[in-house]
Amino acid sequence: MSGNTIGKLFTLTSCGESHGPALAAIIDGCPPGIPLTEADLQLDLDRRKPGTSRHTTQRREADEVRILSGVFEGRTTGTPIGLLIENTDQRSKDYSDIKDTYRPAHADYVYDHKYGFRDYRGGGRSSARETAMRVAGGAIAKKVLAQLGVSVRGYLSQLGPIEIAADRFDWDEVSRNPFFSPDAEAAAHMADYMDALRKEGNSVGARISVVASGVPVGLGEPIFDRLDAELAHALMSINAVKGVEIGDGFAVVSQKGTEHRDEMTPEGFLSNHAGGILGGISTGQDIIAHIALKPTSSMRLPGRSINNRGEAVDVITKGRHDPCVGIRATPIAEAMMAMTLLDHLLRHRGQNADVRTDLLKLK
Amino acid sequence: MSGNTIGKLFTLTSCGESHGPALAAIIDGCPPGIPLTEADLQLDLDRRKPGTSRHTTQRREADEVRILSGVFEGRTTGTPIGLLIENTDQRSKDYSDIKDTYRPAHADYVYDHKYGFRDYRGGGRSSARETAMRVAGGAIAKKVLAQLGVSVRGYLSQLGPIEIAADRFDWDEVSRNPFFSPDAEAAAHMADYMDALRKEGNSVGARISVVASGVPVGLGEPIFDRLDAELAHALMSINAVKGVEIGDGFAVVSQKGTEHRDEMTPEGFLSNHAGGILGGISTGQDIIAHIALKPTSSMRLPGRSINNRGEAVDVITKGRHDPCVGIRATPIAEAMMAMTLLDHLLRHRGQNADVRTDLLKLK
Amino acid sequence: MSGNTIGKLFTLTSCGESHGPALAAIIDGCPPGIPLTEADLQLDLDRRKPGTSRHTTQRREADEVRILSGVFEGRTTGTPIGLLIENTDQRSKDYSDIKDTYRPAHADYVYDHKYGFRDYRGGGRSSARETAMRVAGGAIAKKVLAQLGVSVRGYLSQLGPIEIAADRFDWDEVSRNPFFSPDAEAAAHMADYMDALRKEGNSVGARISVVASGVPVGLGEPIFDRLDAELAHALMSINAVKGVEIGDGFAVVSQKGTEHRDEMTPEGFLSNHAGGILGGISTGQDIIAHIALKPTSSMRLPGRSINNRGEAVDVITKGRHDPCVGIRATPIAEAMMAMTLLDHLLRHRGQNADVRTDLLKLK
Amino acid sequence: MSGNTIGKLFTLTSCGESHGPALAAIIDGCPPGIPLTEADLQLDLDRRKPGTSRHTTQRREADEVRILSGVFEGRTTGTPIGLLIENTDQRSKDYSDIKDTYRPAHADYVYDHKYGFRDYRGGGRSSARETAMRVAGGAIAKKVLAQLGVSVRGYLSQLGPIEIAADRFDWDEVSRNPFFSPDAEAAAHMADYMDALRKEGNSVGARISVVASGVPVGLGEPIFDRLDAELAHALMSINAVKGVEIGDGFAVVSQKGTEHRDEMTPEGFLSNHAGGILGGISTGQDIIAHIALKPTSSMRLPGRSINNRGEAVDVITKGRHDPCVGIRATPIAEAMMAMTLLDHLLRHRGQNADVRTDLLKLK
Repeated sequence: MSGNTIGKLFTLTSCGESHGPALAAIIDGCPPGIPLTEADLQLDLDRRKPGTSRHTTQRREADEVRILSGVFEGRTTGTPIGLLIENTDQRSKDYSDIKDTYRPAHADYVYDHKYGFRDYRGGGRSSARETAMRVAGGAIAKKVLAQLGVSVRGYLSQLGPIEIAADRFDWDEVSRNPFFSPDAEAAAHMADYMDALRKEGNSVGARISVVASGVPVGLGEPIFDRLDAELAHALMSINAVKGVEIGDGFAVVSQKGTEHRDEMTPEGFLSNHAGGILGGISTGQDIIAHIALKPTSSMRLPGRSINNRGEAVDVITKGRHDPCVGIRATPIAEAMMAMTLLDHLLRHRGQNADVRTDLLKLK
Repeated sequence: MSGNTIGKLFTLTSCGESHGPALAAIIDGCPPGIPLTEADLQLDLDRRKPGTSRHTTQRREADEVRILSGVFEGRTTGTPIGLLIENTDQRSKDYSDIKDTYRPAHADYVYDHKYGFRDYRGGGRSSARETAMRVAGGAIAKKVLAQLGVSVRGYLSQLGPIEIAADRFDWDEVSRNPFFSPDAEAAAHMADYMDALRKEGNSVGARISVVASGVPVGLGEPIFDRLDAELAHALMSINAVKGVEIGDGFAVVSQKGTEHRDEMTPEGFLSNHAGGILGGISTGQDIIAHIALKPTSSMRLPGRSINNRGEAVDVITKGRHDPCVGIRATPIAEAMMAMTLLDHLLRHRGQNADVRTDLLKLK
Repeated sequence: MSGNTIGKLFTLTSCGESHGPALAAIIDGCPPGIPLTEADLQLDLDRRKPGTSRHTTQRREADEVRILSGVFEGRTTGTPIGLLIENTDQRSKDYSDIKDTYRPAHADYVYDHKYGFRDYRGGGRSSARETAMRVAGGAIAKKVLAQLGVSVRGYLSQLGPIEIAADRFDWDEVSRNPFFSPDAEAAAHMADYMDALRKEGNSVGARISVVASGVPVGLGEPIFDRLDAELAHALMSINAVKGVEIGDGFAVVSQKGTEHRDEMTPEGFLSNHAGGILGGISTGQDIIAHIALKPTSSMRLPGRSINNRGEAVDVITKGRHDPCVGIRATPIAEAMMAMTLLDHLLRHRGQNADVRTDLLKLK
Repeated sequence: MSGNTIGKLFTLTSCGESHGPALAAIIDGCPPGIPLTEADLQLDLDRRKPGTSRHTTQRREADEVRILSGVFEGRTTGTPIGLLIENTDQRSKDYSDIKDTYRPAHADYVYDHKYGFRDYRGGGRSSARETAMRVAGGAIAKKVLAQLGVSVRGYLSQLGPIEIAADRFDWDEVSRNPFFSPDAEAAAHMADYMDALRKEGNSVGARISVVASGVPVGLGEPIFDRLDAELAHALMSINAVKGVEIGDGFAVVSQKGTEHRDEMTPEGFLSNHAGGILGGISTGQDIIAHIALKPTSSMRLPGRSINNRGEAVDVITKGRHDPCVGIRATPIAEAMMAMTLLDHLLRHRGQNADVRTDLLKLK
């Protein structure tokens, strides 16, 4: 019930600060009998890992995950899966000078007010460092979903002013550039844009899109635990996210009913404006969600703020940061959608020795 | 844990179908000693009530609420508050012809697949009729919040193509027109637009904005139960909502860090792009959220669909509907934000005989 | 999460005071397609109903339940089931004189301290009157379980000094006497004992036993939501219960391993000291639980206490009470076990259109 | 919501198998600003640690706990506390021969049926090894409670046939003998009894009692999350527990109201038959609970059972075991009560920067 657990039947509970000894997580409710190795998790962790291109923070973290429990002879046992990632590259001294200062648009101010004091090193718990464990949990969910023919894939659909072009969309391209852009040409522009942005010492926002295919009809628990409501919860809980859309999202405001409604024929739906969810329940079409990430709050350009004595100060954030948090957010968004879908599959279908057969029966 | 309860310490559990005998709700976790009468709830219920203008469904419902428990000698006792609203105007026969048919963009298809059969009368549980109980629960939350100096107000910010003008914004105007528009001139255009839309037999989408003032610093439970994440959950759970924004929302995608960040001075914040939430925790500024509602799925214009035998059919929705669900959604959005804020106040501050003193101490 | 909901996938949320307008409950997570009528619930409600013999309170309550939602054309729809019981026989004046007084062994004192004031009429929420809704919820659970070949039956195993004799045990006798005693001879002694007790103006404790048969192997979610742990929670939550045992219960303290362990052969278990639960998971044998109920706190014999000004007072409880709360507790204990088992069946097996087939597959 | 988390505002989520790489736990909801070091946890861990006397298993485990997060500069930050204990002394080969065999009264049979297969090494997740993390979580809860003047202490009240004598009761003696017996003379008899039992190759049950002092009035959330109900849940979730009593427990069955009721005077209660809980809410008196632990299932004396092919086999359990699990259960029972009380303090009073002041105000 406290704030560091998400999910109801498939749950992720996590802990860990940016510059503390380690990050850890306990995944509970994973169906038994699923083949699982540390390599399965490392794949996605490496996609999120910092320092893989000049466009992300230069902090070096191996992000090597260790499975502590819940797996026996290469298969999940149905008992909770413990995960551990040791922090290796902490340059805490970088932060001593913001100990008493509230960086603009950071969580420094609210953490001090909520808890009375804070672990200021690298943002402590409020750092995006914790998302490593979301990605690890998501990798487990993806592994289960894959066995049911459900895939979850994401991409960067906009970086600052640069949008991707529908006619150049190519899923295979996503893994070929550091931006997760499905549009090679847009990716090239993004590289130039980021180089200029870094020189400027500024940061920028981004838009990520996630698509789940092969999802059975019927997932979602009205009226409050609708699939779309819990996806919104999961995606909005990612650091820096300020907006969530399902299907056409905010475009529906100016749509007419005849434009929006997805008509059906015996061969299936004729369109997917709904993003695969009606009445809070999956329709069997692709589940489509989009999120908006704000520009990184940490930047070299000075900003007006106050310190914990209420005095005016000018803040320049040193330390190592991503000029665009969106660049590394695609695997995180995939993870949150994958965990939400698996949780709903289990809530819809239950958990037992042959849950896999049951889930497959849904298809 | 099942889908019809929302909240953790302040919870609303509801039941009731569109054409069943009654709607009911149980509100648990309301602080004791709060003055509460049925009139307090009726006020907001009447704002949402159908048939109050020619622009909404002509179904007539008194929506008279009865308090069954939890109140003694005019004050809440700290025990659960039971609420009952009898359904009076059910024209179920209107629906017999869609018994076997899946109306496009409706929940008919998914309910049949999820549950095996459905109460097809007026959409049963998937009808927006259930939102009456959200509004009643929200009215209780507002009553508590008011005592703490916290207010929650909403308005219609866009109806189809018609946006409101910032320079004509007037909170007092919201209650003077049937659209909850803070812009009198826009409201006039909306009336004409809706008249034309009705003739056409079509429907349209809308955008609602909600603002909470007087919220203390510190509400929100990172990392998964962040205030923004739970607001997104609560708001996305409203029928027809396809998008949720906090503060600048999707506009942040193309913002630079220097544009977005809200700088601080000893006098306070200089802007509120964040919508009053940083790191998932309230900053003490206004909490600002926006939602997008899709056009009503029920309309007179025929649409292609299938029946439960998989045969192609043309559907014309008879019965009585709102051509724009957004028109009545403002009190619902207010209710969901109010309940979420009170829940977080209690989670942050606890619940007991003098919780009110405690909560006031927060200010 | 607040205190008036029990269960995780099959949940009961209830409200209502002893002398308030009505009792209500919302049962969420009931599988769809289960035949259900008000008569199904009335059967068990009448077994718990007050005033059925001279040995229980003379308060007259019809306890007529009304189904408000979740049932369509005689079958459950998978949406929440609303239940309503109006209070009819409230003699609140009986209680005005204990308005400021804390009756010994009653909840008066703690309610005033926890909530700041209390609905003193008949004990308000702390009265056993609320158990009517537990019984109604249990009747729904029993109806589902019955379709899976699972039965839940209870009996009074001891009343004050009078124990039942194993060699006279007869399930059919339970419904033939007002005590739910499976031993006709013991029931006769109980009648005499209760007549004397009433004259004396005193009260007495009792022991209830509950047995579930036909339960599949595998129910229970270690390590904290073990089936025995959640049964203990559910049974201890019944008013006046001070102890819970599974299987041999406290007798195991002096048992040796060779006496206690239930050996197995290819034909099955050779004994059931474990009460059908090992490692917190059902074994497929009968689930056996026992509870101890304290003597009614309300009695005519004066007791020393204080009033809300801290002054010493002598209390004589007027009003109408059961001299032995245990006499009517058997259907309540059955209800709590039935709901817990169904909740665990769903958690083990999930919930969907053909959950019945799935659950049957377990057998 | 899955089975490995307990608590609502103060939660413990744990993972780890008897012979897996490590045990881990995440404690969420701990108030910020509490001084906490690994030494605070080690104290109780050492009390539970195996191999400290000839009367417990000879498995040697350092049980050295490492704090991974949630503590900064020696104080809790309000963020989740991660704990890690590496397993060091695993003799898995001891267990290879029971790979396909179901040991009588063990969880082998139900785990195989529930999950389809099991980690058979030392009982995997069903081993009492996991209780180390309960004790660590309990130590954190005790540290917070101590600052509020609340203490939680336990003792062994019966071992097999040997009961402790009230007139020889001495709290200080509890830490002086390996049995946690408050009666030195009884402890001597227990030593002789255990020596004989070991020779015999048998095992025996035990009774543990736990007492909390300094608990404020008002803890407990009726009607289902009553303090007694959640204590019963927490205590029954401990391995081998078959019964839970609050106050007089099963003795109330034959008590009359005049014997049982705790009368009050302006100076306070005159007795404590209720065990400090009325109507599910703490009275301010000592909270008293008792639990019954069954004899260890693992013993040298052969027992009839079956293997996973359904064939009859004779089982002799090798490996290293406690002939009486009760001997090491006292710190575990203390931990479960301490965590339950802190959870209820927070639910009653909330969590924030100065929660300590708030909680102290309760006194």
